[in-house]
Amino acid sequence: MKNIFTGRDIVSDKGYITKRNIIEKSLQLFSVKGYYNTSISDILAATNLTKGGLYGHFASKADIWQAVYDEAVCIWRERVFSGVRDRTDPMIRITKFIENDLRNYLGADVFEGGCFFLNMLVELSGQSDPMSKQILRGFVRISKLIQAWLDQAADQGLLKPGLNHKEIANFIVISLNGAAALYTSTRDDTIVDQTIEQLGFYVRQLKA
Amino acid sequence: MKNIFTGRDIVSDKGYITKRNIIEKSLQLFSVKGYYNTSISDILAATNLTKGGLYGHFASKADIWQAVYDEAVCIWRERVFSGVRDRTDPMIRITKFIENDLRNYLGADVFEGGCFFLNMLVELSGQSDPMSKQILRGFVRISKLIQAWLDQAADQGLLKPGLNHKEIANFIVISLNGAAALYTSTRDDTIVDQTIEQLGFYVRQLKA
Repeated sequence: MKNIFTGRDIVSDKGYITKRNIIEKSLQLFSVKGYYNTSISDILAATNLTKGGLYGHFASKADIWQAVYDEAVCIWRERVFSGVRDRTDPMIRITKFIENDLRNYLGADVFEGGCFFLNMLVELSGQSDPMSKQILRGFVRISKLIQAWLDQAADQGLLKPGLNHKEIANFIVISLNGAAALYTSTRDDTIVDQTIEQLGFYVRQLKA
Repeated sequence: MKNIFTGRDIVSDKGYITKRNIIEKSLQLFSVKGYYNTSISDILAATNLTKGGLYGHFASKADIWQAVYDEAVCIWRERVFSGVRDRTDPMIRITKFIENDLRNYLGADVFEGGCFFLNMLVELSGQSDPMSKQILRGFVRISKLIQAWLDQAADQGLLKPGLNHKEIANFIVISLNGAAALYTSTRDDTIVDQTIEQLGFYVRQLKA
């Protein structure tokens, strides 16, 4: 039997909805309670599923985490790249990216427990190498993107000469993570405002 | 019976040593595994104590955490204030404090699991209000100290006019926490070097 609107099979539609529900509920649980401290029972309680219903979709908690990580990346990207890539001035792109990350992602309380990536990185470091490395690779990718924008800006003569672009890009990622740690524990918007202001000041000092 | 060197009672000396051992082992466990994920059994295994032996010194895991927190603060202070307070130039004091924190505390791997305070703040936020607030109060104290140094620097005419000292002090604390998050998961010394370099650049831009 097919859904008359989507043309998709109704059984698989139902499966899709259940799977989405598991991912969304687990994302919030992991972000608030942490990975180790979230039990399968917590996920069952949040999703109203039986063990059989859950394990029909995911083989393990680690499997759920993978799907949750991918979902968190999607949500983050949508928030931070909005109105960024179409800016022609690479320095405005960097400033806009910083503002989006702090105001529209972190400060918008997208995840109940704050920044999913920072929380997971801190919890899983030294405990799960594959999972913490996956998050680190994400941070490296962001840093490399900012670095590419800085390279572009230098090519256009917008930057002071002799700057270390890799180091600057890493420092921006580091500061954004520090803001995530402090904001999550305070939910104080001044953390967001002050970091936008001071990172903005820092970025302006790089300009020629 | 008294210890002939210390003049202290031998029984209480032994109690003191046991208590120190519990604090030191728990500090490493909490820093690596987190608070919730460290069980009383883990602490018993690390200290070679029986339940009775442990509970003779501490009433609960939360009690151990309090002692561990105080110990972590002592260790941190010793590392970061070395050669700082005697500097007459407040801007050199700030730079030295940043370097000490990153190189002699964070980068020196004082705690197996990285920065105890950042790890605990991230884990306990949204889960234990009293404990996460205690750590936040510590960060506020550090920020206020840096702010006082900035105020002094401004009084001496060393800073650009019109700077927001509170915001700058908070941004320094935020960046140090971000470096802690990234360093812990990578143990890559370039995180330490790059943050010293870029926070140094940032601080120099504040000068008149």
